[in-house]
Amino acid sequence: MDSVRVHAPATVANVVCGFDCLGFALAEPYDEIVVRKIGEPVIRISHLDDFGLPTDPERNVAGVALRAMLDAVDADFGFEVEITKNIKPGSGIGSSSASSCGAVAAADHLLGGRFTKAELVNFAMEGEKLASGARHADNVAPCIFGGFTLVRSTEPLDIVQLKFPPLFAVVIHPQIEIKTADARAVLPKQIQLSDAVKQWSNVGSLVAALAAGDLELLARSMEDHIVEPARRSLIPNFDQVKEASLATGALGGGISGSGPSIFMLCEARKIAEAVLDAMAEAYDPTGIDFQIHVSEISSTGVRLAE
Amino acid sequence: MDSVRVHAPATVANVVCGFDCLGFALAEPYDEIVVRKIGEPVIRISHLDDFGLPTDPERNVAGVALRAMLDAVDADFGFEVEITKNIKPGSGIGSSSASSCGAVAAADHLLGGRFTKAELVNFAMEGEKLASGARHADNVAPCIFGGFTLVRSTEPLDIVQLKFPPLFAVVIHPQIEIKTADARAVLPKQIQLSDAVKQWSNVGSLVAALAAGDLELLARSMEDHIVEPARRSLIPNFDQVKEASLATGALGGGISGSGPSIFMLCEARKIAEAVLDAMAEAYDPTGIDFQIHVSEISSTGVRLAE
Repeated sequence: MDSVRVHAPATVANVVCGFDCLGFALAEPYDEIVVRKIGEPVIRISHLDDFGLPTDPERNVAGVALRAMLDAVDADFGFEVEITKNIKPGSGIGSSSASSCGAVAAADHLLGGRFTKAELVNFAMEGEKLASGARHADNVAPCIFGGFTLVRSTEPLDIVQLKFPPLFAVVIHPQIEIKTADARAVLPKQIQLSDAVKQWSNVGSLVAALAAGDLELLARSMEDHIVEPARRSLIPNFDQVKEASLATGALGGGISGSGPSIFMLCEARKIAEAVLDAMAEAYDPTGIDFQIHVSEISSTGVRLAE
Repeated sequence: MDSVRVHAPATVANVVCGFDCLGFALAEPYDEIVVRKIGEPVIRISHLDDFGLPTDPERNVAGVALRAMLDAVDADFGFEVEITKNIKPGSGIGSSSASSCGAVAAADHLLGGRFTKAELVNFAMEGEKLASGARHADNVAPCIFGGFTLVRSTEPLDIVQLKFPPLFAVVIHPQIEIKTADARAVLPKQIQLSDAVKQWSNVGSLVAALAAGDLELLARSMEDHIVEPARRSLIPNFDQVKEASLATGALGGGISGSGPSIFMLCEARKIAEAVLDAMAEAYDPTGIDFQIHVSEISSTGVRLAE
């Protein structure tokens, strides 16, 4: 086996109250990534898309993630990587994470599956560091593991796979840019203990609701007393989109990652399709272009392409 | 049926990272409470113990909880209550909560079970308000429901019963007094967002660990970055007790309620008995008297006495 093709899914991080720990994998969109093992000890990257991302492996998230893997095995070989991105960079649904996770998962197949999923997350986090300055696992954990994941700790890395019921997400991506620095700047450094208590009570009940498949409790638990109040003004018509979604039967939702995408969870595809229409209608008056789609929550992360 | 006798168990609140939301019920100790329905529209309270608690129903936690229940049904009758406390007041394992929960649960039996458990919690919270000034449900929720409970919200009241594996607790009660006001005064009003993220990540993984019966994850999740660092100095030899327990095989633990009791969770009775010895040995040098015992976590809360 000289070449492996994988699909690396989009992911939602910062799931409502679960800022900096809770994420899930979408079934679509996904990036297509082909990795070939080559004799030369180098990494070569090419893009079959129009996003103009860097191909210098030291400036490419897939490149630095693969470099971490090659260094770990003290390799005398290298990789050629061909990336077709379907997840738009800057959308807030884990575009950089899909590139780095897809690359390391495909490379691991070529090496006979010698690494654990947690080790793959660890390599892919180098890509996140390049993209955002921080070795965070909020998107790479669900991208590798699939389903809902909770990053209990980053150093040392401790990822919890959560039990969850069948769910559908509607994701709207307004075509605006939110700079990571701006999304961070609006966050408070200090918060009230009383607000923190509300937040961790909701995180606990959200995890319990997922485990029990209790959708009413899930809906009640999707409250964010800390991050959403600070960031919602960065996304035009955020409140209108959320209100219209809830009125149409969505269980709850919020900002995906640090935005600008907004996601809403629904218990069935039919409801999600109605919510999609309601979200589109609520966004239309902004005059801002947007993409919107429905996806099942995927229990698998990066997977071999058929 | 004119008279009902119940056992109302001790409870542990503020379970490590789950400050102000997470609690569980012990099988023992428990208070014994007998309630009789009487024709006069009054509440009469007597104590068959030596703790000298008030018998004036307006100054007794069981009295005010029963008053809330009688008011809710616009009653033309009353109750006589006989309380034998085995849970020492001020121990930090839900003594006041056992009195008020036992009284309302017994009274509900006499009224044919007309109230839900959540309604009983709501009445019993009046007792907590009298005892501590706040209508909190941290102890009354596990005392009524049994097992592990998470109070997602107090207003409106939203209690989540958590799935959990068989577990044993060792509880040591140093014979010192910690005033609630002091335990509150040492808490920070504001906390770092980064610390809060660690805390809610641990709350989420603790709930996931209980649901999955993953005891290793449970052990890793029992970290408190906020409350324990502020309160541990109120309890002599807290660190020594904790270290000795963990070294002897306890999964983890911390301050019960706002202290002074310390609890440690263990996966088996045999381990818990060894941990009991280790805790006692670690406490001995303080010269402070203490009580210590092992109890299973009880899946039932207040129960009819046989």
